[in-house]
Order: sequence, then C-alpha cells, then structure tokens
Amino acid sequence: MVSKIMKTCTHFIDAEIVDGFWKPILDANRVAGLRTIYEQMETTGRINALRILWKPDGEAPKPHRFWDSDIAKWIEAAAYAVGQKYDAELDQQIQHLIHLLEEQQQPDGYLNSYYLAVEPEKRFTNVQWSHELYCAGHLMEAAIAYFKATGNRSLLQIACRYADLIDSIFGSEPYKLKGYGGHEEIELALIKLYETTGNDRYLKLSSYFIEQRGRKPYYFEEEAAARGTSATAIQKLEYFQAHEPVREQNDVVGHAVRAMYLYCAMADLARVQGDESLRDACEKLWNILVSQYLYVTGGIGSSSKNEGFTRPYDLPNNEAFCETCASVGLVFFASRMLRLSCDSRYADVLERALYNSVAASMSLDGQRFFYANPLETKEYYNLDGVSEQQYYTRSSWFDCACCPSNLSRLYTSLGSYIYTAEEDGIAAHLFIDSSVHFAYDGAQLALRQETRYPWDGKVVFTLRTDRPVEFTLRIRVPDWCSEYEISGKETCVREKGYLLIQRVWQDSDTVSFVMKMPIKRVYADPLVLEDVGCVTLQRGPVVYCVESADYDVPLSTVVLSSHAVLREKQEVAGLPADVVAVIGTAFTACTKHPDALYSSDKPSYMPVPFTAIPYYVWGNRSDGVMRVFLPETDKCQP
Amino acid sequence: MVSKIMKTCTHFIDAEIVDGFWKPILDANRVAGLRTIYEQMETTGRINALRILWKPDGEAPKPHRFWDSDIAKWIEAAAYAVGQKYDAELDQQIQHLIHLLEEQQQPDGYLNSYYLAVEPEKRFTNVQWSHELYCAGHLMEAAIAYFKATGNRSLLQIACRYADLIDSIFGSEPYKLKGYGGHEEIELALIKLYETTGNDRYLKLSSYFIEQRGRKPYYFEEEAAARGTSATAIQKLEYFQAHEPVREQNDVVGHAVRAMYLYCAMADLARVQGDESLRDACEKLWNILVSQYLYVTGGIGSSSKNEGFTRPYDLPNNEAFCETCASVGLVFFASRMLRLSCDSRYADVLERALYNSVAASMSLDGQRFFYANPLETKEYYNLDGVSEQQYYTRSSWFDCACCPSNLSRLYTSLGSYIYTAEEDGIAAHLFIDSSVHFAYDGAQLALRQETRYPWDGKVVFTLRTDRPVEFTLRIRVPDWCSEYEISGKETCVREKGYLLIQRVWQDSDTVSFVMKMPIKRVYADPLVLEDVGCVTLQRGPVVYCVESADYDVPLSTVVLSSHAVLREKQEVAGLPADVVAVIGTAFTACTKHPDALYSSDKPSYMPVPFTAIPYYVWGNRSDGVMRVFLPETDKCQP
Repeated sequence: MVSKIMKTCTHFIDAEIVDGFWKPILDANRVAGLRTIYEQMETTGRINALRILWKPDGEAPKPHRFWDSDIAKWIEAAAYAVGQKYDAELDQQIQHLIHLLEEQQQPDGYLNSYYLAVEPEKRFTNVQWSHELYCAGHLMEAAIAYFKATGNRSLLQIACRYADLIDSIFGSEPYKLKGYGGHEEIELALIKLYETTGNDRYLKLSSYFIEQRGRKPYYFEEEAAARGTSATAIQKLEYFQAHEPVREQNDVVGHAVRAMYLYCAMADLARVQGDESLRDACEKLWNILVSQYLYVTGGIGSSSKNEGFTRPYDLPNNEAFCETCASVGLVFFASRMLRLSCDSRYADVLERALYNSVAASMSLDGQRFFYANPLETKEYYNLDGVSEQQYYTRSSWFDCACCPSNLSRLYTSLGSYIYTAEEDGIAAHLFIDSSVHFAYDGAQLALRQETRYPWDGKVVFTLRTDRPVEFTLRIRVPDWCSEYEISGKETCVREKGYLLIQRVWQDSDTVSFVMKMPIKRVYADPLVLEDVGCVTLQRGPVVYCVESADYDVPLSTVVLSSHAVLREKQEVAGLPADVVAVIGTAFTACTKHPDALYSSDKPSYMPVPFTAIPYYVWGNRSDGVMRVFLPETDKCQP
Repeated sequence: MVSKIMKTCTHFIDAEIVDGFWKPILDANRVAGLRTIYEQMETTGRINALRILWKPDGEAPKPHRFWDSDIAKWIEAAAYAVGQKYDAELDQQIQHLIHLLEEQQQPDGYLNSYYLAVEPEKRFTNVQWSHELYCAGHLMEAAIAYFKATGNRSLLQIACRYADLIDSIFGSEPYKLKGYGGHEEIELALIKLYETTGNDRYLKLSSYFIEQRGRKPYYFEEEAAARGTSATAIQKLEYFQAHEPVREQNDVVGHAVRAMYLYCAMADLARVQGDESLRDACEKLWNILVSQYLYVTGGIGSSSKNEGFTRPYDLPNNEAFCETCASVGLVFFASRMLRLSCDSRYADVLERALYNSVAASMSLDGQRFFYANPLETKEYYNLDGVSEQQYYTRSSWFDCACCPSNLSRLYTSLGSYIYTAEEDGIAAHLFIDSSVHFAYDGAQLALRQETRYPWDGKVVFTLRTDRPVEFTLRIRVPDWCSEYEISGKETCVREKGYLLIQRVWQDSDTVSFVMKMPIKRVYADPLVLEDVGCVTLQRGPVVYCVESADYDVPLSTVVLSSHAVLREKQEVAGLPADVVAVIGTAFTACTKHPDALYSSDKPSYMPVPFTAIPYYVWGNRSDGVMRVFLPETDKCQP
C-alpha cells in the first residue's frame, strides 16, 4: 500500500537562473567564491592533508577532524557549477581532489585524513566528536552531485565503498556498534545515496542512525566511558539532539546546524518510507522552530555558547549567533518539508532565510563571509586577542570553515529550489528570473519566469509546450503579501498558500502575477524581550536595517516614529543600483545633560534623515555598525 | 613646601553604625557571612594549603595562585569586626591563620602557598599572572587591619618581612627587577603600610610600581619572553592597565577590579606625595569612568570576556558583568577621591554603588553571593555544563572566590566611610544611623546621626561636646536630591555639593536635614544603545527593578507608561518590612497573532498591576528573572 505521504510528496526540478536579484550573487560565488575557497583550502593545508603526510614532528599543519568536510562541500558546490555550465578548470580541480581521495582510501574503504594521519588506531571510537560520520556524509553528497553533473562515477564508488564499510560497523546486529554521529549529516546523505544507487542498505543504515539516536543506554556515554573519558559530562546530550528518541523530542534543542541536518534526514526518511508518524514529528519540530526560535532574518541558533538554541523567544539582537550554516540548514529543512507537502508556510521561511540571513553572509564581491549573522552590531574590542577589531566584518576564511562552502553549494544549486513537480502539475515556490524544463503527461514543457523580484512584485510566467496539455500551475502567495492581482479569467483556487491555475495550457500562454509590495513595519512577539517597543521594516521578503554609513549621529540614538512616512529609493551610493532602500525622517534621541550618564530628564528627539538598507547588503560599503530593530515612538514631532 | 593637595586632603573617621538600613545587612555579614566564608575556606582546602602539604600525587587539592588573597581578605574583614566588638572565637580563627602564615613564611620573608608548594623554583618569574604581588598586598592590608584592631603586631611583622623581600627584588636599581604586578593591589597596600609603619621604603616601592607601570620596554613582554612563552600575545596590555604610563592613560580600560585598585593607589600616592599631576590623572580617569562606563546601579565592567571595560557607553543590561569586586573597588576609589577633595561627586557615586550593586551582591541572610550583577536576567540553560540552571541566582561560593571576602571587608569597615575629618571640621558623606567620636580644636565631640535613610529623607544630627567649639559641619546634598530643608537660622553656604554649617556648636545642638524623596524616572544617555526608549526608577539613592515574583505576565512584555502614576508601598510580602516598593499600573504588550513570531500588527497594550522593588533585594524571594530598565510608552490607556 502506498501511504498518503508517498502519493503527495514531490521533487524539485532544476531551473536555470537567467537574470535578476540572484544573478550577480551567484556569479560572484561561482567566480570569486569557489576560487577563494579552493585557494584557502590549498593555503591552509586542507588539500595537502589528503596526502596523509602529517607527522607529529613534521612541518605540515595538523589536520582538523572536520577538514575533509570542507573538501567535500567544495566538490559538491563545484560539481553543481560544472553541471550547469561546463568549466574544464573547475572540473580538473575536482578530479584532482577525487584522485587524492582515491589514493587515500584504505583497502577496507576507510577514508578520513585526520584519523589516518593523526590517530589511525582510534577510528570510530569517538563518533560523538570525531566528525568521521559527518565527513563521510559530505563525501556522499559530493559524490552524488558530481555523478549527477557529469555521469562520472569515480567519486561515487569511493563514497559507496566507505558507506559499505560504515554499514558493516554500525547497526542493530549484535556484532555492530550501536552508535550514531555526534554531528548529524550522514543520515540525509545516505538517503540521497539510496535514491541515487537504489541500494537499500543505505536507506536501512540511515534509518538505523535516525531511530537509534537518543535511545538508552546513551551511546555517547558508553563510548566516552570506553575511551576512559567523561565527554558527555562537559556537553549535554541535547547539544547533539541525542537526549531522546527523535520522535519523542518536543523541543528544538542544541547545536543549530546539527538540528537542521537531523530534521532534514527525518523528513527525507518520512517521505521515502511513507512514515506519517515521523512526518508528524518533523511537523511538530518545524512549528516550534518557526514560532519560537526564528529571527526575522531567517537566522536561527541565538547563542554562540552552543552555536544553537537556548529557550523559546530568546532572540537577542546583538548577541545573535545565527550561524550561516544554520540558515543554510534551515533552507534544506524547509525544502524537505515542501517536498512532503506543498504548503507555503515552508517556502515562506525558506525565502525569509534566503533573502536575509543567507544572502547577508557573503560580501557582494563573493570573497568574504560572515560566520555569525547578528541583527545588531556594536563597536567592540577583540578582547581575547592581540589585534583589536573595532567592527564586526566579514572574513575571507575561518579556522572552522564550514560556512563558505556550505553557502557555495546552496548557491550553485539554487536553481533547484524554485519549482517542484507536483502530481497535477508544477508549483512555483520562489520568484526568480529563470527558465525550467519539465515533462507532464507526455508533453515537453518550458516555463520562463521573468521578474525583478524582490525589488518589484511583478512576475510573468510564459509557457512553451510542444502540445496543449492540462495541468495545474501553483503560484505561491507569500506570507508578507496581502494584496495581489493575477491575470486571466480562470477560477483561481487558493490552497495551502498557493494559487492554483488549472487549465489546458497552450504554447506561449502567459500568467502575470503582481504582488503589491509596500514597506511594512514588523513587530516581534513581545515574548522576545529585546524587541518590545521596537520595530523593523520589511518590503517583500527583504528585511531592512540601518547602518552607520548612512548616519551622522550614533546609531544607538536612532528612533523611528510610528507616524513617519517612509518611501522607497533606488541608486543608493555604494550599493547595486537596483537595491531598494527605505528613506524618510527619524529621530535622534539627545540627552539634555551630556556630562551625565543618567538623568531624570527624558532625552529630547530631534529629526534626522532616515535611511534603511536591505539587511543582506550591510557591511559592503564601509566598516561600521548596524541594527535591524529600532525603538518606535508615538511622537510625531520633536 | 606643603602642596595644595596635602593641605586640603582629609581622612575618614570610624563611626559606629547604630541602626537603620545597614544594620541587618552588616549583622548578616558579621554572623553568617564571615562564618560561611571561613567554612568555605576550610572545606575547599584554602586554609590547609597554608601548610604547604600539596604534592603532585597527593590527595590535597592543588592550591590556586590567588587562594592566599582569600585568606588575607577574610582576616582583614574579621579584624575590622573584632576591632568594633571583640569576639574571642573570631580572634582565635584569625590567630590560627596568622600562625599558619608564620610557619609558612620562609627565612627570606617569602610567603605564597601556591608557589611554595607547586612551583617553588618559579618565584617572581611571572608577576604578570602569578598574583604573588597581589596576594602580598592583601596580606599587608590584613596585617594593618589586625594591628589597628588589636595592637597585635604578629601579622604586621610577617607582612613587613615579606614587603622587605619584595623591596629587595623590585625597583629602579640596576640589579633589581623592573616589574610590577599583573593584578594591582600591592601598590595601595604599600602606601597603607607606609602610613602605618612610617617606613618610607614602602612608599618608595609603591611609587616605583605605579610609575614604572606601562613604560617601555614592556615588562610583561620581557618577562614572558624570559619564560619562553608569549603570554602577552593572548592578552592585551590594556587588560592590566600596563599599556601606557599611568599618567598618560586617557581611557578607562581592561579588567575592572585591576583598574580600580590601580586608581586607588594613584590617588593615595597623589595625596601622600602631594602630587598634583597625579591627582589630575586620577580626576581624568574618574570623569571618564563615571560619565562613560558606569551603570545606574553603580556596577562597572560590562563584559565577562575581560571582566572589564569595553567601549564608552557600552552598557548592555543582560550581559552586564558588573563584578561585585569591581563595585567594591569603585567604593574604594571614590573614597580616595573624597580624601583628595570633599566634593559630593565622589560620594554620589560611592553611594550609588553601595545601595545598589554592592548591596545586591549578598543575599539578605548573608549566606549567598553574586559574582556578577547584571541589570537584566533571562531564563537560560547552563549550556556548558551538565547541570541545568534555569535562573541566575546567588551562590554560596565560587572557584574564584574574590567577591565574598571583598564584600565582607567593606561591610565590616563600612562605618569608616560616613565621615571625613576636614581641616575646618567634619563632613558627612553618607546618611547612616550612626555615632562618631572626634576631636576638634581641643574639644572632644560625638556626633549622632539618626535616620531611616534611604527609606526616609530625614536625617537628624545631634552633637555632644565637652565645650563650645567653632567648626564646620558639611552635609552632602546628594545628586538625586533637588529639594531639601535644613533647620536652624545660620547662613548655609553650599560648596562642592555640601551644605556648610559653620558656627559655634554647643552641647546637644541638633541639625535636622530633610531631603524630599520622590520616585524619579531615570533615563540613560541615548549613547547607551540598550536603554534608548527605556526608563528606570530611583527613589533616593535606591534604583528599582521589576522581578518576576511580582508578575503573572512574562517580564519581557512589561512596558511603563510615561503617564503612569506611581506610589510608594511598604510591607511587601517576602521583603523586610521597611523596604519601600513602587507600585502603580503598567502595560503588558500582547501580540495579536500568538501563532506568529512576527507580524505587521503592533502589539496591543493591556494594563497590569505594576510593582518595582529595590534592585538590591532582588532574588531573595524566589528564583526568577529581573529587569532594571523597561520600555517606556507615551500611551496612557490601552
């Protein structure tokens, strides 16, 4: 019997991004981003580490436990790029890395540059912290991407050999280890590997890792005891989402990237196995995540202490960690939920993360990255180090460099997040100037989407078909959109946030969908302590911030009147010409006693020109500070 | 020639605290506090460490480099207590510790339980981090206190022997080390030792340490290089206030307690040597400190990263570190500035720290302490540990236990901060129900101060004298006080914030000083980002907060209307009966979309009963959260 889920679940179709908002960003990633990351991997010894040459007394830098994942994510990113548009140099770099991996792989399939070089006798004795299974998962994703892009099976074979070894070591059989990785990733990768190879051992192993997680006795405690350490004593099991079986988890906890990758795997497993109770568990976690733990920018994981979740509604702006990888992981999780059900709630969050937290994490030139994406920055000292850094800025690299390549693989595959093939047609989740080819009911179709979104709310779909064909085009109505117009005379049903245009389509048919895109004031739930009395601005999916580059007064003093008339402005100096800023008049709060820190006299409010820019472009003009939320006053004049 | 400073500088006179606000707090400290700390020092091995029994493979806990300072500060605190009211048990405990110190002291005078036991060959090779000079300084302060309290010279002799050794090692002579301690303390202690013994070697050594600090080549860098480490590479010299010569320092930087102890020593040295340029340096640092780095509670040092200062106006509420020792140090610094000049600006800050940040740091029962004193707390996980702590609460002890004994020595000597003897009479800086004896112009005088301050603004001074005598009584008009009445018909000059009552005093003369004490709204300079649009309350010197114990709604949602009528209330359940709370009506912000974290609909405001309690009593009724600043709205009805 085919379950209800399996009947309704869908898959994404690759579209080509032709123009618009993302084009320069993706070009920067493809040209500067991929090159920068490769060079950094060379410079920092990550590529050389694949040669297993490290010796305790040698000159080579000691590899880190997660270096292999940087390599793998870069290969994955580059493979998508090669698949879209062949690039011999890029392909050669990929093949060079594959060659090194091939040389490194042990006869039994084992492959990990840290353990082979540094602790060869300690394989799989510390899966809580070793990142072995995490690195293996990324290797699988890279292999699948390269195989799909080129048909070349070399890396896929390496990945399968390693997966077979892991399958021989972990599992429910009495002679196998009852463990699972401390950083989830292999679970979702194994499902991809199953879907790519058809080998259901991989599905079974993924299911084992997912279902075994959090069961008693706790594997991480037993594993630590076997090593003679009490590793779990210094980190709660919640950090790893390993405190309870996954279906029984009733809160979003721990390290944010770990959580996202687990939830992705749970959603995939629910889909592939038609497991409704697991789908319900995903839905429960999704709802908690987006209603209690999500920043307005799509950032998640508020604390730098655990790079993760703390308490419901604990969403400070300044200390916001919001790791780039966590927002990328949120896009992955949202896309998986979309495959389970074409519901705009998922695409709304996916879009929120994409246009804000994710887009902010790379500089416009593609060469520098944020690891953390706070909603407010201050001048500060780098108190722990020698060098004094006055402002929070993007960096070209990190010791723990998970973010740049994670972002890169999302960007080189961004065309695959626009549409899903639905049972009765096709659904448009994102508004990106693009072109997609698909088949339906024997017809060969091409759907061109033309738009300047998110700067303009007009989207025109044009269909090419080799024959008239009846199907449904679903167009998402975003959560921020309260007014829109759609062309044509068809009855337009709205279902789970999508407009359903069901008709017999002719070649060259067009649909014009126009969303009104006013500047909106956005307020957080007052359970978010830091945002009470404060407001932020949003236009379309784009969240705004103020940046010191636009102000002569200290940003701390800027207050927005609830009566302020705000309007759009393009061609802001130093920003891409099409970027829409928001301008008007705000107040600057001024003390009446400049010599006293505290006073019984309320500060006075003086008018100042107000400029807000999209959050994602902050930090691209000059170093300075930034704020997403501002205090809002009911005063209308000083 | 006697310099201008030396002519005007004054000294504090010990008063006996008779009744009022501080009585139960000081009793709790004297009874529970001193005992708790002594027991903790026993339990944790600090006292046993004085026996130098630690062996690498033994059972005794390894002493820490600053353990000796805990012992010394407890002796100092207990000595003041014994001096006020003899207590044989306490004196016996002190003498027991002195005996252990005597046994431990080396023939050359060296005395440090950590170095003697753990690294005997490494004496004075790491004064940047070793706390040897810091511990020595506290030993001197303890010795002086015990000598003054009892006339017993045993500890004083130990301290002098150690001081002599240090003097033989550090100094400008070519054969001496050109160093100074990484944690200031010995500088101020040596000046006290000079003032107690009259031996000017101690003054000269203190002056050397102060003047040498921050000169190039940097001693800490040379010392680290000599050890073969690059210790300074991981901590900026600003942390130690060792980046520039002290007179050239133009900002308040680094570890807050370190900074306060240095500034104390600078002020003392300026006073003793009549050094006006050094006094000017103190004045410069004082002004920067109180106008850019001071919390409304008298807390200082906003960051936990360096336990210290960051940037001007960087005064976040939730992350506020505000170490107890730093506020205690601020009281010390303010009292030294008061000795240089009878100016109410210093006493105002001293009082602010005392009634708020300092008073908050001990529980009402004297048994638990805050190390950090934030202005806002949240529910939180203890993310780094096994145990999950939901609320920030006081603890009975700390691994680094500097705060309890520091607080304790301030409390047992609190009577000495009320009055200074001035050239032309006496100045009353604090309003504390007390009695002081002093001599002036051959007359023996007693001044009784009766008051319920800070709950009531009325203070009655009654003078007893054995003969009529002409002198000036200075009474401070606090910065918060804009309306007051003073009895009597004399011309009442106001000078540097003090009312000068100059007359021929007769026995039984009284002066009644009545300060109006309304509830005031207090606003921070808008350069303090976190406080813009927010307000706090103050009545007299007491700063208020809201605490979850008084609320049915989440504290994050509480907003105060600028129109709210606020009134006083005593006898709040769970608090001492005389504590004045502030009550009225506030609003709770309510989202119109409980299922959505973000919305374009502004939250609505519903009335809720408002209760604010003095900051210093928070966390004494039940565990929960607290806020000092609240958003303020101009709305007057929902």
